[in-house]
Amino acid sequence: MTEAYNDTPTADTMETLQSNSYNIYFNDALAEVVRFVENGHYSRFFVLTDENTAKHCLPLLREKLGDNDNYDLIEINAGEESKDIDFCIGVWKMLIDFGADRKSLLINLGGGVVSDLGGFAASTFKRGIDFVHVPTTLLSQVDASVGGKTGIDIDSIKNIIGTFTQPKAVFIEYDFLKTLPARQILSGTAEMLKHGLICDADYWNLLKESDLSQPTAEMVYRSVAIKNQVVLEDPHEKNIRKSLNFGHTIGHAVETYSLVHDEDSLSHGEAIAIGMICEAYLAYKKTGLSLDELNEITDVLTSLYPFYQLREEMNDELLEIMKKDKKNQNGNINCTLLNKIGEFNIDNICTTEELIESLQYYASLN
Amino acid sequence: MTEAYNDTPTADTMETLQSNSYNIYFNDALAEVVRFVENGHYSRFFVLTDENTAKHCLPLLREKLGDNDNYDLIEINAGEESKDIDFCIGVWKMLIDFGADRKSLLINLGGGVVSDLGGFAASTFKRGIDFVHVPTTLLSQVDASVGGKTGIDIDSIKNIIGTFTQPKAVFIEYDFLKTLPARQILSGTAEMLKHGLICDADYWNLLKESDLSQPTAEMVYRSVAIKNQVVLEDPHEKNIRKSLNFGHTIGHAVETYSLVHDEDSLSHGEAIAIGMICEAYLAYKKTGLSLDELNEITDVLTSLYPFYQLREEMNDELLEIMKKDKKNQNGNINCTLLNKIGEFNIDNICTTEELIESLQYYASLN
Ligand SMILES: NC(=O)c1ccc[n+]([C@@H]2O[C@H](COP(=O)([O-])OP(=O)(O)OC[C@H]3O[C@@H](n4cnc5c(N)ncnc54)[C@H](O)[C@@H]3O)[C@@H](O)[C@H]2O)c1
Ligand SMILES: NC(=O)c1ccc[n+]([C@@H]2O[C@H](COP(=O)([O-])OP(=O)(O)OC[C@H]3O[C@@H](n4cnc5c(N)ncnc54)[C@H](O)[C@@H]3O)[C@@H](O)[C@H]2O)c1
Ligand SMILES: [Zn+2]
Ligand SMILES: [Zn+2]
Repeated sequence: MTEAYNDTPTADTMETLQSNSYNIYFNDALAEVVRFVENGHYSRFFVLTDENTAKHCLPLLREKLGDNDNYDLIEINAGEESKDIDFCIGVWKMLIDFGADRKSLLINLGGGVVSDLGGFAASTFKRGIDFVHVPTTLLSQVDASVGGKTGIDIDSIKNIIGTFTQPKAVFIEYDFLKTLPARQILSGTAEMLKHGLICDADYWNLLKESDLSQPTAEMVYRSVAIKNQVVLEDPHEKNIRKSLNFGHTIGHAVETYSLVHDEDSLSHGEAIAIGMICEAYLAYKKTGLSLDELNEITDVLTSLYPFYQLREEMNDELLEIMKKDKKNQNGNINCTLLNKIGEFNIDNICTTEELIESLQYYASLN
Repeated sequence: MTEAYNDTPTADTMETLQSNSYNIYFNDALAEVVRFVENGHYSRFFVLTDENTAKHCLPLLREKLGDNDNYDLIEINAGEESKDIDFCIGVWKMLIDFGADRKSLLINLGGGVVSDLGGFAASTFKRGIDFVHVPTTLLSQVDASVGGKTGIDIDSIKNIIGTFTQPKAVFIEYDFLKTLPARQILSGTAEMLKHGLICDADYWNLLKESDLSQPTAEMVYRSVAIKNQVVLEDPHEKNIRKSLNFGHTIGHAVETYSLVHDEDSLSHGEAIAIGMICEAYLAYKKTGLSLDELNEITDVLTSLYPFYQLREEMNDELLEIMKKDKKNQNGNINCTLLNKIGEFNIDNICTTEELIESLQYYASLN
């Protein structure tokens, strides 16, 4: 695993990756979308976008489609709110109204919100129609579009409802990132750094020396290759897929807290960066991460991401959220930690005291 | 296939059936439920009932559970209305409130409404928790509980949303039928007659001579064995599973029409009986069913089920509903017909004229 992808790829080594019974395309990805639609013998096809991807990304796809642009469009509002079950019902009803049948295809053109919602809606419509992802954010390219998790929210509980259903293909078009706001780029970068930390120290070293406000196409490719390899080995998160949860037990709680309380809430990556610092601290305390490595991780992440004020009064609520985490069993809070940079360690039960101590570590960095 | 189950079984030949990676238990089925719960290492378990099964069936299960009756109860109203997405959201929210985790088990104790809704809710909660069916109606014992289809309704469109997810076990307790109203028994009988018609002429001959107001345990077993064999060979309805749709293209349209228009609407089986008569007529016209066999099928079904007035003014709406059928592709209306009694014939496209003629055939029987 630690050798997921040894050499930094160049454009011509960015070959199509094989995932569970489907391909992940990189080169001339939009042309591949068109080829897929043409060869798929679908009765109809539908494109799901949000308002931003309808504006910035759909025109590029339509250009490639040429005369084949006979799809029906389903557009949702931008933002996590659109992953609520009510919007999912809206998507289902539009599919009904448009007359979608079992041989229809849904193309999810957008970030993780579009791919999670669209994947869920498609995987349950008439007991499942085909769907593909065309991820348009860095986060969805390196993370959400690969691995077959779909999900929607109820009462702001993220991904509480979903399925494991693989897309029929993923098409990664690097050029979409050109219109993506800087803050969204950095949100995706956090997952790339995570990929290095959990299983590829070389990649971590490369990233920490690079200008991460503009990750290269090769870096995107390398991250996708790592994520793909992990989920191929463990599609249903029984064991090594849990490595991807590094930073996410605490990060996810901070993200949810911020969604509820802050006017301008944290992005996923900003929250996960905080989570990775706290969980690196836990790794230092519990699983052998060295102090030097803890300091290195802390330095890289604090230099990239804005500092967020964690106050003691927040602890109860943060712990409450962690206790409700899907990943828990028997009421214990579970973290993925590191043995060292490039080597993960799953299923570490952490006590309330340990978790609070790690939050204090982050708070003390100010 | 036509030899699905050759000899009428007696109580001691009602052995556990193997389905796709799960068992269907018949002997002392409630004791098997308790054994399953005890051995399953679940963190929690939940029982889903409707108001009638809470009253008539839950006490029998609780008695067997003895000291193990530490479940949380989720109760829905009786009737198809409870399969609406709104009630599904209600079930999800109760699972959240009760603190269900990924190692929780849902026991669906009820008819097809409970098993379809509970199966869907469980298969999507936290991307899927385990569920088992304890069917309490004849229809759900011989049909709905086996085969892995889950489903809910939106805007009265039946089963428009759902998944293919296998239960972890099915427990068929014949004694539950004692409290089932006569009309519900007859609803299930229609599916049993269908099993004979599509692939077991001996079984059809046995049923037509029997008192079908009280099918025996052996008959239930024989029907489950047939349905199980069909779905085992074709879990995702690519080919032979379509045999189970005999009577259902027209029957389903009549059922939907009646749900919308009648005060006291038709049961599923009553509608399917009408559908089987119409589709037997189409089989006589199109796929070689003999006139004698058509008359035999018509006689058996009209003697069991009340006559329903199909008026010419209804045709447009019935055809509209048939056109929206999930089973269609490319806008063609598709029927499963019979070559003869005991032999099905799938994928017959029927024209509007043919369908109307078959409805007229039924109407003329008065
Ligand atoms: N399924 C998985 O395995 C998985 C993994 C990680 C995250 N997720 C989910 O992904 C979601 C977050 O994804 P996200 O960060 O992509 O969020 P997002 O989909 O909300 O996109 C972020 C913002 O960028 C805009 N945008 C998208 N593409 C653009 C482009 N090319 N140019 C300009 N603007 C563009 C969007 O409209 C939105 O405003 C969360 O709901 C999370 O739960 C899922
Ligand atoms: N998943 C499948 O493959 C499949 C197959 C066929 C039908 N179905 C679905 O099944 C549903 C119909 O199932 P159904 O006919 O069992 O309906 P149902 O679940 O509504 O039950 C019928 C009535 O009997 C009552 N009842 C149930 N058990 C009882 C008992 N032991 N004693 C007294 N009363 C009892 C119920 O409360 C209800 O009022 C439909 O929604 C249909 O779509 C699914
Ligand atoms: Zn993440
Ligand atoms: Zn039926």
